[in-house]
Amino acid sequence: MPGTIIPVLDIEKTHVIIQNMKVSEIGEFGLINRLTAIIAKRQVTNSASNKLEIGIGDDAAVWRNADRLALTTTDCLVQDVHFKLEDTSWYALGWKALAINLSDIAAMGGIAEYALITLGLPPNCDVGDIEELYRGLLDLAQHHNVVLAGGNISTSATLFIDVALTGSAGTQLLKRNNAKTGDLIAITGYPGMAAAGLRLISGDNTPCIADAPMRQAFWQPNPRLKEGSAILSAGAHAAIDISDGLIADMKHICYASKVSADINLSKLPIHPTLKEFFGTEALHLALGGGEDYELLFTAESSVMSRIIDNISIPVNVIGTIEPPSKHIVRLLNSDRSEYKPSITGWDHFAK
Amino acid sequence: MPGTIIPVLDIEKTHVIIQNMKVSEIGEFGLINRLTAIIAKRQVTNSASNKLEIGIGDDAAVWRNADRLALTTTDCLVQDVHFKLEDTSWYALGWKALAINLSDIAAMGGIAEYALITLGLPPNCDVGDIEELYRGLLDLAQHHNVVLAGGNISTSATLFIDVALTGSAGTQLLKRNNAKTGDLIAITGYPGMAAAGLRLISGDNTPCIADAPMRQAFWQPNPRLKEGSAILSAGAHAAIDISDGLIADMKHICYASKVSADINLSKLPIHPTLKEFFGTEALHLALGGGEDYELLFTAESSVMSRIIDNISIPVNVIGTIEPPSKHIVRLLNSDRSEYKPSITGWDHFAK
Repeated sequence: MPGTIIPVLDIEKTHVIIQNMKVSEIGEFGLINRLTAIIAKRQVTNSASNKLEIGIGDDAAVWRNADRLALTTTDCLVQDVHFKLEDTSWYALGWKALAINLSDIAAMGGIAEYALITLGLPPNCDVGDIEELYRGLLDLAQHHNVVLAGGNISTSATLFIDVALTGSAGTQLLKRNNAKTGDLIAITGYPGMAAAGLRLISGDNTPCIADAPMRQAFWQPNPRLKEGSAILSAGAHAAIDISDGLIADMKHICYASKVSADINLSKLPIHPTLKEFFGTEALHLALGGGEDYELLFTAESSVMSRIIDNISIPVNVIGTIEPPSKHIVRLLNSDRSEYKPSITGWDHFAK
Repeated sequence: MPGTIIPVLDIEKTHVIIQNMKVSEIGEFGLINRLTAIIAKRQVTNSASNKLEIGIGDDAAVWRNADRLALTTTDCLVQDVHFKLEDTSWYALGWKALAINLSDIAAMGGIAEYALITLGLPPNCDVGDIEELYRGLLDLAQHHNVVLAGGNISTSATLFIDVALTGSAGTQLLKRNNAKTGDLIAITGYPGMAAAGLRLISGDNTPCIADAPMRQAFWQPNPRLKEGSAILSAGAHAAIDISDGLIADMKHICYASKVSADINLSKLPIHPTLKEFFGTEALHLALGGGEDYELLFTAESSVMSRIIDNISIPVNVIGTIEPPSKHIVRLLNSDRSEYKPSITGWDHFAK
């Protein structure tokens, strides 16, 4: 996801206070806020900037071409941050590196088109492993009709795979900042599965058939491109993928749209396997676990019914968009009492 | 530069022979050849692939939009490969990360438009340093009217900066594969300056005013966008930037265009500072040194005269395009005897 922004009221003031701080102390979103402020002051004004529809702050950057909107996103997998080589197959690495980018295009309702792949490779990598990585990439690319159009290879002590992906859309897009009070909130699939998969992969558990859906959700997520298109064309208001975790990404929509959200925990779809393996912890994984590439979206009630009818994977209405409020996202038990979780989302640099 | 290709006649055969090899053993171009072969077999056929004008194998990927050609390139700087933190300023890092991408658009005669920045940052990075990096990026972006449209930040043990840059052009582009027998070969600026700069930076020399142009060529290269546009609109046939080194990039043009090249060493522009600091070695640096972002291009004689008149920086004719030949690139002394250098170019993985 390129540059998620959480608004900060007084960037300049913040700027002075946190001079000489480490990136780890202000976190990913804190750093993005500061850089966004610097960029905003220095942005050029020309025909390109006039055509820019969405810059930093949504799933992809968007500008107008003559006939369509152009979307571009970039996202990477870094060794020992997003994966450990001993826990993954090279095929899965290639698949996931493309999947996380496809998901950004899906979250805007766009069509994915061209991918450029940057590989940072330790020189002792096996050529066969890199080819396997490309097989994973190509299998997913083929499935979603994406053309591998170029890239770049460098040595690097830390293995990384960075993908730049372009796409297009007509005149309309799903954005984060368009949720309306009264909208229903829905989610595709089952949140928390990837976080559960990561927990299993990082632990000492021997893989088994029963836990495969969770490991698969982590390593080979299915970006929801078809569903994103259907959600857009039905007339939904806002969407995001839940790569930062359900609550964190719900907050991104709320901040950007200047609304709040009520989530009914009893409506939250918990996959039976998640419940079986993680018991009472399943709810925490579903709410806070990142790296899921399901879509979270909002739409009027009548539109929501059409969407649910038209999408073949499970879609569950889990709450409502409410007027702006201090609490931003409120989690409600079935008796409408408030539930306060401890985990809320994923930040690369937060301690 | 995305995926430079040196044609290999029998990829399949090569494939069998080098199974279980390390990336360092086949080198950057060997790996790219193999991946290109795998990708070619699996490429999708759809409206996006039909619009693809240039895929892997030139400076940028190119596809047709309704009214213009769209260009996209990606290139990165990796710690301890392209830079050492103790030898650089953060400002220069940001500048150079964008410059190397701008140069790919320049080499095709395109107009640069939108940049997406991926940062892989060790958590102990200073926030102020990252902001300084962005100041370098923004100064160069502003100079070339480029809009910073998004990006992505991750932790990484190895610092890296990856830029994805888009641009556009009318219906024509400068390509590598269009040099014609009889063309004159010319170069902008002075080759070897960046390699000399790197030598000074890596050594124990105290920086001085006299060696500044070489250090500057390494850390703050000026991508030749204006010159690329002028070269294209005058009607030149082929162009490339010399980021891999003059001879290596001349070979890229020759392979792609199925021609050979004669370079007259007496015509090679050697910067006085380069000669002063490196004596007889200056020639080797000019021929083999990488990381220069000057343009090497070919054009008919009458076109070449127009180009030289219209470009304000030095342009020197250094040779001629000849019919296909075994020697590919021939270096000629002033008496037309052949000169054989030991260094020919830059390969990330070659030992």
